[in-house]
Amino acid sequence: MSGSESASDLYERLLAGDRRAAARLISMVESGDITARATLKMLYEHAGRAYIVGLTGSPGSGKSTLAFRLAGEYRRNGHTVGIICVDPTSPFTGGALLGDRVRMQDIAADPEVFIRSMGTRGAVGGLSVATNDAIDILDAFGKDYIIVETVGTGQVEIEVMKYAHTCIVVTMPGAGDEIQAIKAGILEIGDIFVVNKADRDGADTAIADLEMMIETGPRTVQAGWKPLVTATAATNGAGTEDLAGAIERHAEFLRTSGLLEEKTEQRMKAELLDILNLRVSLAAEKALEEDVAGKELVRMMTARQIDPYSAADVMVAYLLKRVGGEE
Amino acid sequence: MSGSESASDLYERLLAGDRRAAARLISMVESGDITARATLKMLYEHAGRAYIVGLTGSPGSGKSTLAFRLAGEYRRNGHTVGIICVDPTSPFTGGALLGDRVRMQDIAADPEVFIRSMGTRGAVGGLSVATNDAIDILDAFGKDYIIVETVGTGQVEIEVMKYAHTCIVVTMPGAGDEIQAIKAGILEIGDIFVVNKADRDGADTAIADLEMMIETGPRTVQAGWKPLVTATAATNGAGTEDLAGAIERHAEFLRTSGLLEEKTEQRMKAELLDILNLRVSLAAEKALEEDVAGKELVRMMTARQIDPYSAADVMVAYLLKRVGGEE
Repeated sequence: MSGSESASDLYERLLAGDRRAAARLISMVESGDITARATLKMLYEHAGRAYIVGLTGSPGSGKSTLAFRLAGEYRRNGHTVGIICVDPTSPFTGGALLGDRVRMQDIAADPEVFIRSMGTRGAVGGLSVATNDAIDILDAFGKDYIIVETVGTGQVEIEVMKYAHTCIVVTMPGAGDEIQAIKAGILEIGDIFVVNKADRDGADTAIADLEMMIETGPRTVQAGWKPLVTATAATNGAGTEDLAGAIERHAEFLRTSGLLEEKTEQRMKAELLDILNLRVSLAAEKALEEDVAGKELVRMMTARQIDPYSAADVMVAYLLKRVGGEE
Repeated sequence: MSGSESASDLYERLLAGDRRAAARLISMVESGDITARATLKMLYEHAGRAYIVGLTGSPGSGKSTLAFRLAGEYRRNGHTVGIICVDPTSPFTGGALLGDRVRMQDIAADPEVFIRSMGTRGAVGGLSVATNDAIDILDAFGKDYIIVETVGTGQVEIEVMKYAHTCIVVTMPGAGDEIQAIKAGILEIGDIFVVNKADRDGADTAIADLEMMIETGPRTVQAGWKPLVTATAATNGAGTEDLAGAIERHAEFLRTSGLLEEKTEQRMKAELLDILNLRVSLAAEKALEEDVAGKELVRMMTARQIDPYSAADVMVAYLLKRVGGEE
């Protein structure tokens, strides 16, 4: 690829609505291809209009199906939709590709729904950066709603959820441990809680449990919003309209309270920090693997001749000299 | 606290076997108290002897009970043990404290077992750094085996597992989704797979499933080692001896193959990178929250006047100037 020409070519094609250009650009950011940056920089001013909905909850809760139902609901109302499935577990087994294949069956019909799975391809932190880039790409591509779905509730997923305007936590009836897990980790990030598979026994109990948890739990993220609890049955679509309504109520709350702007700023900061961390990590990893000074540092640590904090000091000084010299 | 005196005081007490000194120092690293570093630096040369066992698997698999059984087995053989329970979900609800209380019932009897829960108190990345520090502290404190248990299988947990010499993945019979989750994420990091609760129906199937998965799955972490599958019933202790034996076989493999040294080097690199990332993150966060230049950068990003990659460039230059000026 010859850098700038392709970059502006991708840019033009993407703004003209070419899905393959969007897919190509997302593949580039996912694989850490830095030639994508020229295009991203150009696209950035066209992004910033999409509403970002985060969807999390543990495996088996039916998140993916729910994401499709929600996308369908938005489509019925004339909106365009992007779905990004974030799977931090896929570096090892190519889960993202499998995900793509499963999803392909559903999307064939509608060119206005763009679906993409993202896995970790590179360093820790690479997934957050790539996810953010993908959001910006689909945003600039003109999608009104971008649904970001995560496969688990680990720290990476929680970080990703922070980027969403509205964060939805999905659970299901009878998932006792499930609700404990929510309690322990993601109660505070949920703006809306969904009891999916609500046609099963125990849905009322699950809803009551969640409501009590919300009443008694700490709510630190956004003052003034009491999380909503809704029930859905994603397999037949029941409750999807209610869920879309709940999201709209939260969006309205964010707009009127001024928190929308604050959320956007938080996302900008997180995005910048992710890029910064990834950059430092990659530079440091390279130094430790390839440079004489870096290798010597690892040897000294292994031999317990230098402690990791002092080694980090040495590395900071070393990177400063290198990066400084490059500029 | 007056820095250096307390640091050397803690150091002396810890090397003299004072549990409260160890607990105090771990609390300091967990809360991100940088005055702990002076003591850590002194302790570092005394660490490096412990064998680190990682224990992961999803909630409900009985990991904690298994960790206690394993600790009991080591104690019977005259070894000392440290247990660190890593809980990335606890920043929100203080889960680590709850964990401590539950565990307290079991440990009262044995002063040679040191048990500690660790939650995220600060920035992302802080937990990895604190966990590493805690490992080093218990190592210098003279524990022969350090069992690091994680509550989930997110990316942070997988990172933590990389520090272990032997990584054990715990599952249980009938956990179909469970095994899928393992397949998707942590098959490759497991040196030993345990089917816990093996007194339940379906244990044989679970074992067979795991064995097939190992046969057909990719094994990229360590060439030459075929993961072992063992069965335990942690509630009554059955199978614990076999598990300890499997760990010893893996340890022997690492020693004879030369991979032990390689694993140690990997841990050193990861430890250094974690510290470096945390340092950069904290400095950048501070700049974005407090400095005029940082705030302006966030404003420009929010207004889409600068893209995040260019903003990261600006931030790197800004931090370089600041960090450079401090030295």
